[in-house]
Amino acid sequence: MLLQWFIASWLQRKYKKMNSVIETINAHKSVRRYKKQAIDKALLNEIINAGMRASNTGNMQLYSIIATTDDGVKEQLAPAHFNQPMITSAPVVLTFCADVNRFTKWCEMRNADAGFYNAESLISAFVDASLAAQNVCIAAEANGLGICYLGTTTYNAKQIVDVLKLPKGVVPVTTVTVGYPDEDAPMSSRLPLTAILHEETYHDYSEKDICSAFEAMENDPNNEKFIRENNKQNLAQVFAEVRYSKANNEFFSKEFLDALRGQGML
Amino acid sequence: MLLQWFIASWLQRKYKKMNSVIETINAHKSVRRYKKQAIDKALLNEIINAGMRASNTGNMQLYSIIATTDDGVKEQLAPAHFNQPMITSAPVVLTFCADVNRFTKWCEMRNADAGFYNAESLISAFVDASLAAQNVCIAAEANGLGICYLGTTTYNAKQIVDVLKLPKGVVPVTTVTVGYPDEDAPMSSRLPLTAILHEETYHDYSEKDICSAFEAMENDPNNEKFIRENNKQNLAQVFAEVRYSKANNEFFSKEFLDALRGQGML
Repeated sequence: MLLQWFIASWLQRKYKKMNSVIETINAHKSVRRYKKQAIDKALLNEIINAGMRASNTGNMQLYSIIATTDDGVKEQLAPAHFNQPMITSAPVVLTFCADVNRFTKWCEMRNADAGFYNAESLISAFVDASLAAQNVCIAAEANGLGICYLGTTTYNAKQIVDVLKLPKGVVPVTTVTVGYPDEDAPMSSRLPLTAILHEETYHDYSEKDICSAFEAMENDPNNEKFIRENNKQNLAQVFAEVRYSKANNEFFSKEFLDALRGQGML
Repeated sequence: MLLQWFIASWLQRKYKKMNSVIETINAHKSVRRYKKQAIDKALLNEIINAGMRASNTGNMQLYSIIATTDDGVKEQLAPAHFNQPMITSAPVVLTFCADVNRFTKWCEMRNADAGFYNAESLISAFVDASLAAQNVCIAAEANGLGICYLGTTTYNAKQIVDVLKLPKGVVPVTTVTVGYPDEDAPMSSRLPLTAILHEETYHDYSEKDICSAFEAMENDPNNEKFIRENNKQNLAQVFAEVRYSKANNEFFSKEFLDALRGQGML
């Protein structure tokens, strides 16, 4: 009887442990409204440490994380993120940066001929910073915090460079706002697995594949109001002509490449 | 008595759930040797689904995941990864790609004026693919699998484009090999938290900061043999002059930018 209980309890714990990670990942929602409650420093450090456990290129750790909690600095950051309210309302704003500055400084002090100011090192650093960011987000969510990524980070990279005093060799990659949730945020939909996953090699999409990939999204009644509000005929036009227009994408591409040149990376 | 038990049990489960996520993240090791055991298709799908729950830019989901299990295709991929044995020995090779092809095709079918073939969309897609990859890795590890990232993916992007038949608009970002571990891999060291984390704004590193950031790594006896083997004076020279040399970084930068142009992204 006791043995049975032990086995059942062991199995349950083992199963719980496996499941809770998947459950945490699958329960992700972008949280945009936060309570005023600050994040305990020990907890924040635990989360950042979890971020640092992510894989990175050759263990060079070519990234930095900037944690902004000061209202004045957040006010300065806000315009770079088109004044999205999360920047000033979240207790902590984390800016993840590609960083070849620290590693290059070390190499130079050690008389090593460093060459990390280039596109290849930058892109490795971009991936490294992103992996660390995602670990941070999962660790935060496992601790009851809510997060929101701000893709605006690369749009206005030059402004962020100025506000956060990023030296040459450091480029902002993504921003995450973190805080205790003050809303029951909706869970966003995803394309079906078969639309994202390719077996063996890439299988390019037929018109039929595209229709079935986007069918659920197109039929989501929540999207109808965006089509009406923007005077468009369909959801694709809302994405391509309003939210992420060609003109904007091309403008911000130029700005971003300029920022990379300014930071010595291109 | 019963109430006490309920409370204790509830607290324990709550605590377990929180901890197991952090524990899973903190237990990460790169696993390079795998058992022959295949990964069950339902499990692989569960892991990919977890990847798809990661945040992404505007829910456009500008990425694709290619799961290669066929020995023939893996043999073809191997040279692009400098024949690292994980490619052919892991049961599953996942190539995460930035992908503006699928979304653009949808927009064109819906008469929407799409403009995603540019640097800004590419870099958003690079971050999105990386976040999905990290979710996949944590979900895999939570299920007893081992993973290893291959940074070689952007080095030989053109070869990967050919082998995986990536059309214009699709660029490989990172590769993850997945399988049941057949080794007790070592845990790699990390810089101290204070070397990665900046408070409020970036604080550039003094010589003293650099010394304390890299001190533990420099004093790690495991690194001594690399210095001796490569006839170098110190660890920084091993990194900058052997593993990630300026000449190589510059060569692969050119190759990578060519690959981006070839895929219509620059």
